Amino acid sequence: MRTITIVGAGMMGSAMCTPAHDNGHIVRLVGTPLDREIIASVKQSRFHPTLQRHLPTGVQAYQIEELEQALDGAELVIGGVSSFGVDWFSEQVLPLIPTHLPVLLVTKGLAAESDGELIPFPHYMQRKVGLGKRLSLNAVGGPCTSYELADRRPSVVCFCGEDASTLARLKEMLETDYYHISISTDVVGVEAAVALKNAYALGVSLAIGLIEREEGIGCREAYNPQAALFGQAMREMASLVGLVGGKEESLAFGIADLYVTIFGGRTRRLGTLLGRGLSFQDAMTELEGITLESVAIATAVAKAMRIQEEKGAIKMTDFPLLKHVDEIINQGKHVSIPWKEFTHQFL
Amino acid sequence: MRTITIVGAGMMGSAMCTPAHDNGHIVRLVGTPLDREIIASVKQSRFHPTLQRHLPTGVQAYQIEELEQALDGAELVIGGVSSFGVDWFSEQVLPLIPTHLPVLLVTKGLAAESDGELIPFPHYMQRKVGLGKRLSLNAVGGPCTSYELADRRPSVVCFCGEDASTLARLKEMLETDYYHISISTDVVGVEAAVALKNAYALGVSLAIGLIEREEGIGCREAYNPQAALFGQAMREMASLVGLVGGKEESLAFGIADLYVTIFGGRTRRLGTLLGRGLSFQDAMTELEGITLESVAIATAVAKAMRIQEEKGAIKMTDFPLLKHVDEIINQGKHVSIPWKEFTHQFL
Repeated sequence: MRTITIVGAGMMGSAMCTPAHDNGHIVRLVGTPLDREIIASVKQSRFHPTLQRHLPTGVQAYQIEELEQALDGAELVIGGVSSFGVDWFSEQVLPLIPTHLPVLLVTKGLAAESDGELIPFPHYMQRKVGLGKRLSLNAVGGPCTSYELADRRPSVVCFCGEDASTLARLKEMLETDYYHISISTDVVGVEAAVALKNAYALGVSLAIGLIEREEGIGCREAYNPQAALFGQAMREMASLVGLVGGKEESLAFGIADLYVTIFGGRTRRLGTLLGRGLSFQDAMTELEGITLESVAIATAVAKAMRIQEEKGAIKMTDFPLLKHVDEIINQGKHVSIPWKEFTHQFL
Repeated sequence: MRTITIVGAGMMGSAMCTPAHDNGHIVRLVGTPLDREIIASVKQSRFHPTLQRHLPTGVQAYQIEELEQALDGAELVIGGVSSFGVDWFSEQVLPLIPTHLPVLLVTKGLAAESDGELIPFPHYMQRKVGLGKRLSLNAVGGPCTSYELADRRPSVVCFCGEDASTLARLKEMLETDYYHISISTDVVGVEAAVALKNAYALGVSLAIGLIEREEGIGCREAYNPQAALFGQAMREMASLVGLVGGKEESLAFGIADLYVTIFGGRTRRLGTLLGRGLSFQDAMTELEGITLESVAIATAVAKAMRIQEEKGAIKMTDFPLLKHVDEIINQGKHVSIPWKEFTHQFL
């Protein structure tokens, strides 16, 4: 029995309580300043209002002011913030983490440096903290939605990090008969693949609305167009994972994650609205302005790629799906899928 | 305007009438001996009883006895049989085809030779015909269901064959603003990828029934387990495409095809029934004994792989998902997904 402290009480961070609890650990869940109501609810009744489930018996909830107390004696810290909380986590939490205490991030995303370099969050955070203090920053990739993890549905994920023995220890701490864990030292590859899937899930979802525009909302889904976009997404993701220096073997985590992301949540809803022909502004109004990881990552990656294109390192025309998603989000274009650009000659 | 003769009036062969017609060609549809009622219906009213749609105006229907008449003057023959009709097509149709007349097969599958070699149907057919008469045998791969092609939904497919200029000509003859065509000379890779997807679609569909067994039929789908199987399917398909000598670039056609196959038809229904815990025999009884490409390909590939394993060329344990599908189909086992075998160490 060890103590695991989760910082960030969003849906994914909180869902990690389940495998941690089922391994017999002491589980502490600390809310960010944005999670006050969630923590108050968990303290009162164990009910998590956005995950819409009761957390396992024994999970101890802490408000942010109780962070140091929650970290006391912890043998693992799980970073449960979204990509929008990465700077906060780096500035407010990481300074309290000693170098021997491993961190496992559930955050998916890539940070874009001003020179067009795309780096995974563990590397970004290490830069923020400074290279003088070497932390053990690991991350979870692969297809796993929070609801289904909390429901103990079979899932296969990947823990990535620099050090194989740390990864083996984290796997041993968290694996259950429903939560299955691969490990990889290809941090750049795994993180790029699973971050990019958010942008491409938006791209594939465009096909849903596209058919609804022709056939009416609620029509039978058409899968040929979705599959065509899925195949193109895979080609572009494979290229991008290679460009950032990731390994080919890591792509499958992102592709499986793309699959699961298409079938749930807000990215699918946004893609569907855009596919119907709404402008990005109108779609975001309909979604009440929620902030989406998919929008953030598509924007960041496209921006970085344009910088790389100016340097002559890549051509945006080799990424017609990402380019079109970026045009819709950031240049006011309406959906007009460039199907012909998805055909190739392999001779 | 050219004459295109389609031999085999199943759903996919018949759906090819649509892009052929929309390119302004003369379209002739010839039924096999199993297609008598379909052809009679099309002759009478253009209605295709299994595709459940009217074929385009002007499509000319022929019974098998009228085959030679239908081939007269044709500039392209489309082979519209399923994998179960490949021998019939090779023996009854190919002898009538002159060497200058290209053939485009919609058939997906792999033939297993007695030594464990897996070969694509264009190569298998050429062997059947004899190497003395060199035919132009090309094939369609990629995600495209017949219903959606007939409905003119956007689709991206791949035509593969030995000769780039023939492929370019076939593309020019059949491309429309909804039917988009890549071309590839990697016949082995494209055909292996799109054949294997049938076996793996059965594997991924197991997850659907698995959750229904816990939650009841008609429950909300769980995507973490499907995605875990999808990722494992991708890894195994990538290995197998490499083993038969295919190129990595061809894998995406099979993965996109896997995506579309999971969402429709009989393979999904069979996988769902097996996932609920039915034996293969009981599931086939429920499906009234229909013959399934997925069962045929999984059986053929697993058999070939066991021969290869005896030779020391591969290990079946490197393909735990296909191995389990084969055990269910051919060894009387009930579903028991080997999740732990899907975890890997990438160090």
